[in-house]
Amino acid sequence: MPYEFTYSHRVVFAETDLAGIVHFANFYRMMENAEHAFFRSLGFSVHGDFDGVHVGWPRVSASCEFFKPLRFEEVVDIQLLVAEVRTRSIRYLFRFWKEIGGERVEIARGAVATVCAALDKTGGKMSAVPIPAALREKIEAAPSELLAEILPAKKTPDRN
Amino acid sequence: MPYEFTYSHRVVFAETDLAGIVHFANFYRMMENAEHAFFRSLGFSVHGDFDGVHVGWPRVSASCEFFKPLRFEEVVDIQLLVAEVRTRSIRYLFRFWKEIGGERVEIARGAVATVCAALDKTGGKMSAVPIPAALREKIEAAPSELLAEILPAKKTPDRN
Amino acid sequence: MPYEFTYSHRVVFAETDLAGIVHFANFYRMMENAEHAFFRSLGFSVHGDFDGVHVGWPRVSASCEFFKPLRFEEVVDIQLLVAEVRTRSIRYLFRFWKEIGGERVEIARGAVATVCAALDKTGGKMSAVPIPAALREKIEAAPSELLAEILPAKKTPDRN
Amino acid sequence: MPYEFTYSHRVVFAETDLAGIVHFANFYRMMENAEHAFFRSLGFSVHGDFDGVHVGWPRVSASCEFFKPLRFEEVVDIQLLVAEVRTRSIRYLFRFWKEIGGERVEIARGAVATVCAALDKTGGKMSAVPIPAALREKIEAAPSELLAEILPAKKTPDRN
Repeated sequence: MPYEFTYSHRVVFAETDLAGIVHFANFYRMMENAEHAFFRSLGFSVHGDFDGVHVGWPRVSASCEFFKPLRFEEVVDIQLLVAEVRTRSIRYLFRFWKEIGGERVEIARGAVATVCAALDKTGGKMSAVPIPAALREKIEAAPSELLAEILPAKKTPDRN
Repeated sequence: MPYEFTYSHRVVFAETDLAGIVHFANFYRMMENAEHAFFRSLGFSVHGDFDGVHVGWPRVSASCEFFKPLRFEEVVDIQLLVAEVRTRSIRYLFRFWKEIGGERVEIARGAVATVCAALDKTGGKMSAVPIPAALREKIEAAPSELLAEILPAKKTPDRN
Repeated sequence: MPYEFTYSHRVVFAETDLAGIVHFANFYRMMENAEHAFFRSLGFSVHGDFDGVHVGWPRVSASCEFFKPLRFEEVVDIQLLVAEVRTRSIRYLFRFWKEIGGERVEIARGAVATVCAALDKTGGKMSAVPIPAALREKIEAAPSELLAEILPAKKTPDRN
Repeated sequence: MPYEFTYSHRVVFAETDLAGIVHFANFYRMMENAEHAFFRSLGFSVHGDFDGVHVGWPRVSASCEFFKPLRFEEVVDIQLLVAEVRTRSIRYLFRFWKEIGGERVEIARGAVATVCAALDKTGGKMSAVPIPAALREKIEAAPSELLAEILPAKKTPDRN
């Protein structure tokens, strides 16, 4: 399925904070790592040359809701879903899962919007460009029923 | 003003990534650092004991929109606004500003919702509790006109 | 072999910096991650309870020499060698390897000395304690010939 | 004094780990941040153009010894000393200080060796070059008596 991908990660020590749980900023890194692994699974690097143009994916926005804490050495599955593909941008949804008492539980849910940009390496400038065709034809949005099911996210985090 | 606070930060090397700009996950850290400096400005630590209870502030959700890149050694002002104070939770807005050609420009805008939680240090459990009175009476939401002005955020990031 | 362990890692985007390579501070995290994976391979967590005592491993010292840069999405093998086991402390050596042109090349070499400490969770105090027997009997130092071969590290990094 | 510089930092939440103290990898970032602030104090950026050449400072080696833990919101002074200036490289010593009970206590001590390198931005290659004259004439090694006094570092960390 070119609209779904799951990336597994075992929490490392440096990701935790003094509250004893994974620091929330690391969830945004995990979403990005899942996105990049998704690209690799399609045979691309997220940071590569297409027809002589160096393409990157600066973030337009990113959000995450946190339902349950994640702890040191736990394994988390980050499920990526392509929510929308436009000419110059892609929007992803992410669901974080871990096992609690033998059950798979969603512990966080996030979204990232990112734009395809040509990077001028010498000057550091970026400008939006159409997604390269070779990549574009490998990515599609998830079926709307699937997206509808998970949007909007849970209204009531259990810590509130 | 107990509903506004500005925290300045000079970007360090380790915050950048190979695209030559600040990695987006660091914006969530910066929002948190501004929140903690806001607490210190009121005479409190974000991680402290109130009447024998150890209180922390786990995140319920956090989002950020990125308008312009931020680079190594640039100074960014993170402006915190208290958007809502409830019995057990606070919601903040954040605006990131830097100087471009002598002008102050908003480069990103974010939001964080956080819940007041009692931390059980030995077991690592957290449960929502009312915001301690000593702290509660020092914090108020920004005037609705001020909040209305900045919500919703810009629709059209200039990289899209 | 209870004195050697190899941990593989694929470099993620957030580990790079604006020079386009992995930021050097991340090598210390990688050494720690290899150490923790080594503990898991023995059936232990690095942060666990032994006979009712909560044991952690604060660092006494850590060093690293950098021979070649490491880049985004490259796979690095972190080879751990137990260099010395004392009553209350362990010293490790680490060699970082990656493939360059089909050849396995050592790109960095480090060392970490760490002490077994009882953590008082409520007060945050630490005090050195003997390594728990169950763990101690599973770890031994690498043969001295093996250690001699890799010590001292290369004198002449190729960037100097 | 062109061979000494002190950089102050207040510990932020994301720098701590589940042991309740600053994660050791952050000490290497702090040494680098002090080095970069030292450069700024001399009127230079650590990552800048000199006579059309883009110069950076990849690390050759870095080490640190840890004497006392550092905690959330504590202020740490990172004292930089230039230990040696060679044609293409600089070696620094760092001493970390914080206040404990009204007294200034050294909590960690480190060293960084770094080489002046020309960065080829498009290809990502680096090669050692002589330190630019404008910079070289502003930096000198600390007096040998001063260096002798602090080398070697304490033999007996108080946690061992």
